[in-house]
Amino acid sequence: MLGRKLSERLARDGALGSAPISELSLVDVVPGADARVADISEPGAADEILSARPDVVFHLAAVVSGEAEADLDKGYRVNLGGTRRLFEAIGKAGRRPRVVFSSSIAVFGPPFPEAIGDDQAPAPLTSYGTQKAIGELLLADYSRRGLMDGIAIRLPTVCVRPGSPNRAASGFFSNIIREPLAGREAVLPVPDDVRHWFASPRAAVEFLVHAATLDTAALGDRRALTMPGLSATVAEQIAALREVAGEGAVRLIRREPDPTIIRIVESWPRNFDARRARELGFRAETSFDEIIRIHQEDEL
Amino acid sequence: MLGRKLSERLARDGALGSAPISELSLVDVVPGADARVADISEPGAADEILSARPDVVFHLAAVVSGEAEADLDKGYRVNLGGTRRLFEAIGKAGRRPRVVFSSSIAVFGPPFPEAIGDDQAPAPLTSYGTQKAIGELLLADYSRRGLMDGIAIRLPTVCVRPGSPNRAASGFFSNIIREPLAGREAVLPVPDDVRHWFASPRAAVEFLVHAATLDTAALGDRRALTMPGLSATVAEQIAALREVAGEGAVRLIRREPDPTIIRIVESWPRNFDARRARELGFRAETSFDEIIRIHQEDEL
Repeated sequence: MLGRKLSERLARDGALGSAPISELSLVDVVPGADARVADISEPGAADEILSARPDVVFHLAAVVSGEAEADLDKGYRVNLGGTRRLFEAIGKAGRRPRVVFSSSIAVFGPPFPEAIGDDQAPAPLTSYGTQKAIGELLLADYSRRGLMDGIAIRLPTVCVRPGSPNRAASGFFSNIIREPLAGREAVLPVPDDVRHWFASPRAAVEFLVHAATLDTAALGDRRALTMPGLSATVAEQIAALREVAGEGAVRLIRREPDPTIIRIVESWPRNFDARRARELGFRAETSFDEIIRIHQEDEL
Repeated sequence: MLGRKLSERLARDGALGSAPISELSLVDVVPGADARVADISEPGAADEILSARPDVVFHLAAVVSGEAEADLDKGYRVNLGGTRRLFEAIGKAGRRPRVVFSSSIAVFGPPFPEAIGDDQAPAPLTSYGTQKAIGELLLADYSRRGLMDGIAIRLPTVCVRPGSPNRAASGFFSNIIREPLAGREAVLPVPDDVRHWFASPRAAVEFLVHAATLDTAALGDRRALTMPGLSATVAEQIAALREVAGEGAVRLIRREPDPTIIRIVESWPRNFDARRARELGFRAETSFDEIIRIHQEDEL
């Protein structure tokens, strides 16, 4: 989803920062409109991708959290093995491209401080979060060694995610807004007081573009950055939905507690002090009303 | 070296904590007296090791820091790939053994606080430190998933290391004591004011044994522990050598600054507050005189 939005944005701009784009090469594991099909966890696939000699690589590919938890082998094969193969291929190609890696706030685990600062030690409580934390370490080492110019951005949960639900455990945060706005029922598997950390798809695409163009000298050797976001509870999400679409929409949310999802979400952080990223010019929404309005502008 | 000392200790005790040892199986990548030869980075090697159905696995295998920095592929193949294969084999064997993994203080990088506490975020500035930090993450995830009962212990630099120099960049910390005590010259490649974090081989073996026998319930999901140690400068090392062996021994230290080693050592931490480990009963030396005395007792 983010890859599609990013490529649309880049095609529209025709440039990345001040640099015109001469070629945009999309790679996906499933067949899509304009993407080459490749699985970066397969030997040789990453080398072939690198034959396009890119100046910038966006690495967004991942088995999502719910699936990485359900399928240990697949999660490690793709999220660790695939990332390692991609970085190795980048190192061997020898062009030192900018590499933007989408990491996640799932690298952090409880106990949480009131707001997680930039020096908090990653302590993931999911295999997905573990694999993202490992990707950050690989990226930092490859960058330190001059093999790439990497930046890992820890994305908030992207909300409202358009399209149909995927297997991410966080899917319901979007479902309970998107589906009622379209007149459809949505399942809420967690209590209303669950707090989480959000940014809109529009903000997330802007994070990726900014990460691809900023001066990485300011990062030093610490190449992973927590992105800014909005800390909101499910109750606050629902209040914003009521504000925008009325009580009829809210009534389409069906409460159906799911112990597995509750357990996964409990291990996720809720609030951050993303100071380093803000100082580097990254910006997110400041209210859930704004997040819903962006969804309406961009999708409806 | 640590593996040999550990196996000697276990053979002598005939027990690990209160559990008698029925079988001790040693595995090394190079042929040795009693060890099977295997390379855990090769497919199938780890599965074969696990066929001995161990209750406890000590994973000390690693390409050392200097070599992992010089040979990117080899370091990742063994320190990351080999560890991953070993943990996968342990998971598949399905016996949930205690796994003691020797990590390193090289997982930390500057800027350093006065003393590094238990919540400091790993930020390695060597490939070796990166690979150890990744091993910690894998071990925590495999333990959380019930596939092993893991504990990663971040060893201080082990000093005085017996035998002949290896390719570890930290080798000189031992060379400047061991060699003069034996009447031989030793090269000091860094300034006298370099501060570092030490424990004797005897203390390191005791860390491994204690890690294999303690109740891991106290660890929760945070399975990596910084071991206690002694913070000392090279000047303090030399003063202790003078105390024990006189000015003649000190005169055998030849100062020969090595920019590569200076750069690597500058990225290493110097002082820790290893509170969690101390509370769990881990103990180290409190003076460098004591470290030299232990070397004399155990080796000379």
